[in-house]
Amino acid sequence: MPKISQKGITMPASPIRKLVPFSDEAKKKGRKVYHLNIGQPDIETPKVALDAIHHYKEDVVAYSHSAGNITYREKMIGYYKKQNINITANDIIVTTGASEAIMFAMQACLNPGDEIIIPEPFYANYIGFAVPAGVTITPIPSSIESGFALPPVAEFEKVITPNTKAIMICNPNNPTGYLYSKDELMILRDLALKYDLYLFADEVYREFCYDGIHHFSVMELAGLENNVVLFDSVSKRYSACGFRIGCVISKNKELMATIMKFAQARLSPPSFGQVAAEAALDTPEEYFSKVLEEYTQRRNVIVSSINNMKGCLCPNPKGAFYAVARLPIDSSDRFCRWLLEDFEYENETVMMAPASGFYSTKGSGENEVRISYVLKVEDLKRAMFLLEQALKVYPGRTI
Amino acid sequence: MPKISQKGITMPASPIRKLVPFSDEAKKKGRKVYHLNIGQPDIETPKVALDAIHHYKEDVVAYSHSAGNITYREKMIGYYKKQNINITANDIIVTTGASEAIMFAMQACLNPGDEIIIPEPFYANYIGFAVPAGVTITPIPSSIESGFALPPVAEFEKVITPNTKAIMICNPNNPTGYLYSKDELMILRDLALKYDLYLFADEVYREFCYDGIHHFSVMELAGLENNVVLFDSVSKRYSACGFRIGCVISKNKELMATIMKFAQARLSPPSFGQVAAEAALDTPEEYFSKVLEEYTQRRNVIVSSINNMKGCLCPNPKGAFYAVARLPIDSSDRFCRWLLEDFEYENETVMMAPASGFYSTKGSGENEVRISYVLKVEDLKRAMFLLEQALKVYPGRTI
Repeated sequence: MPKISQKGITMPASPIRKLVPFSDEAKKKGRKVYHLNIGQPDIETPKVALDAIHHYKEDVVAYSHSAGNITYREKMIGYYKKQNINITANDIIVTTGASEAIMFAMQACLNPGDEIIIPEPFYANYIGFAVPAGVTITPIPSSIESGFALPPVAEFEKVITPNTKAIMICNPNNPTGYLYSKDELMILRDLALKYDLYLFADEVYREFCYDGIHHFSVMELAGLENNVVLFDSVSKRYSACGFRIGCVISKNKELMATIMKFAQARLSPPSFGQVAAEAALDTPEEYFSKVLEEYTQRRNVIVSSINNMKGCLCPNPKGAFYAVARLPIDSSDRFCRWLLEDFEYENETVMMAPASGFYSTKGSGENEVRISYVLKVEDLKRAMFLLEQALKVYPGRTI
Repeated sequence: MPKISQKGITMPASPIRKLVPFSDEAKKKGRKVYHLNIGQPDIETPKVALDAIHHYKEDVVAYSHSAGNITYREKMIGYYKKQNINITANDIIVTTGASEAIMFAMQACLNPGDEIIIPEPFYANYIGFAVPAGVTITPIPSSIESGFALPPVAEFEKVITPNTKAIMICNPNNPTGYLYSKDELMILRDLALKYDLYLFADEVYREFCYDGIHHFSVMELAGLENNVVLFDSVSKRYSACGFRIGCVISKNKELMATIMKFAQARLSPPSFGQVAAEAALDTPEEYFSKVLEEYTQRRNVIVSSINNMKGCLCPNPKGAFYAVARLPIDSSDRFCRWLLEDFEYENETVMMAPASGFYSTKGSGENEVRISYVLKVEDLKRAMFLLEQALKVYPGRTI
C-alpha cells in the first residue's frame, strides 16, 4: 500500500470540527446542543442575491474568466471605494472563498521553508494553507489581558529571520474579535517596509465593527502598495458561506500576474456564486445596519454573561462575531468534549471551540474557548446559563 | 519590493489561454474566430439542473459538509453503480472541480521531490497542480502513429526511480481523445502493484466514448483498491463547467481521511453547484444519446477533413472531444499565433491550441495542434476549410 505524504500526516484536523462526532452523539441521545463553535451565521442571505439565482439566465453554465467575471470585478470597485479602498478590476482576482485567495498568496509569495509571522491565537485553517505550501507559521503571542491587541514591535523583531517573508493579520480578528487600529496597522507598515515583507490581511469581517468604530484597511496604508495582499470573501458579509466566493487584491502587478497563473490552472471560480455575489452588491444599507445591531446585542450578552461568571474573563471584542474567553478549566479540549459527552442541564448543552486549536504554540489557550455568537439573543442567553451551570460541576475546574 | 516565490516563477501560463490576447485583437479587427482551442462545450446544461437552481429553497446559503452534501454523495452511488463502480458515500469527497481533487491527491500522496509518471501529451494543467505540491512530472512519450496508445511497460520501467510515487492517466484522454482499453489498464494495475505506486485517473470524459466502445474505469481493477485514486467532475458530463463540482474517489481509507483534512481547511465545495449537480443526476438518458450522436458527427468531420489535407495526420479518437493532429508546420506556437495575427479568409480564422503546451519534453509537439470539437457541425466544416486554406499559405509550411 503506497504511503501518505509527510504533508498529509502533518496537516492538522480542523479544531472546529473535531468535536462534531461528539455533538452528533449527544444529539442522538436526544440532547439539544447550542452551537457556539462555528462561524456559520444564522442571518438570512440578502434577497437580491437569492433572486439573481432564482432568475439565473444562461443555458450553458460555462467557465468564467479565471480572474472572475469582469462585470463582477468592475462592480466591486464601487463597493471598495466606499471602504476608502481605491482599486481597479485588474487589482482583483476572484477566488473560491478567501481560502483559495490565501492559498494562492502563500504559493506565489513564499518558498518552502519560508516563514510567516502571525499573532496568535489565529484562524486555525491558516496552518491548513501553510502546510501545502511548505511554509512555516511563526506565532507571536497576543494576550487576553490586552484584549488581544497587536503584540509590541519587539516581539515581531525577535522572531524575524532571513526566511521571514510575510506578516499576516486577520482584521477584525477570528478568533478574538479584536479590531486593529490605524496606529497598529502603521506599525505593521513600517515593519513590512523595514524588512521587505509582504503584509497579508484577511479582512472578511470588515462589515462587523461595533461601537461606531471605523475599519481601517491595509489597502489604505500609503507606500505599501507592493507589499499588501488583501484577502476578502462574501461569506460573512452577506451570510453567503456556501457561495464560495472571495477574492485576492493587490496593487503589486508582478504578484497578480503570478497569482493569475495559479488561477488559470484551476480554470475559474464558481459561476452561480459569482452571479449571486454580484447581485449581493446591491444589498440595501438597512440589511447591514440591522445585522450590526443584532450582532452588537449578541456580543453584549456573551461578554457580560461571561464576565459575570466567577473566575472567567472575556474581553469586549470590537469586531467579527467571535470572542475568546478564559474559563477556570484545566483543559479546553477536555472541557468542550465533556460538555458534549457528560454534561446536560434539562437535556441541553453547549458546543464551543477549544481555543488551544487556534494557537500553534503547544500548551497555549488551554483555559480559553472561542465562542461564535451566531445564535439569536434568547438562545445565547440560554447557552450562557448552561455554560454557567456546567462550570459549577466540571470536574476539571481550577478555581 | 518583496520577491515572488520560486514556484510562482516556475508555474506555467496556461497554453490554452496564452493566445487569448491575440484572438481578442483579431476580434477587435472585426474578424470572426472559430474557437477550437477550449474545452468549453456549447451543449446546453440539462434542464433538471437549471430548474433546481431556479427553485433553490434555502434562506441562508450555508457551508456544506466539507466532504459535500450527504444527499448528493448518496445519490452519486447509483450513478457510479451504472458505470460498474461500486462505492459508498464515504469513498467520495466532493471537490471544487476535478482540479481541486487532483490538487488534494498530489498533496496527500506525494512529497516534494516525488515523481509522477504521465504519458505525454497530457492535460497541461497537471503541471499547474504539480508545481504547488513541489512534485515532478516525468513524461513518457505516446506517439501519434499509434493513435496515442499507452506506451509500452518498458518505457514506464525505464523512468521509475525510488522517488516515483504515482502513475497518472486521463481516460478518455485530454488532449488526444485516446480511450485506454481494459488490457492497457491491467498493465497499469500490474505496474502499480509491482512498484507500490498510486494510480491516479482523471475520468471526467467518461460519458464521451464513441463507436459503441465501453469505458473501463480504474475503479474496476481488482486488487488495486488502495492504490487507485479517481478524479471526476460534472463539468463535461452535464456541460456544467461553471458549477465547479467534481470529486475525488478512493477505497483507501487512510488516504481519504488525509484528503478530508485538506477538504476541511478550505471549508466546503460550492453549495449552488452541489444542488445543481445533485439534480443533474436525474438527467434523462436521451440527453446523453443526443450528445453522443452530435459529438460523433463532429469528430468525424474533424478527422476526415484533416486526413484529407496534404501532409496532415489525425488519429481517430474514441473518446472525449479533442483530437491531436499533425500538421506540416514548423512550429505550432508560431502557426496558431499566425492564424490569429496574420491570416484571414473572407475575414474569418481559426483558433487552436498548440500541442507543444501539452508536452513537458521540450521540442515535442512542435508540429501538432489540439482541436476541441465543441462547435456545431456546420461551423466545424467551415473551420476545417479555413485551416486548409491557411496551411496553403502559411510561410512556415514544411512539406
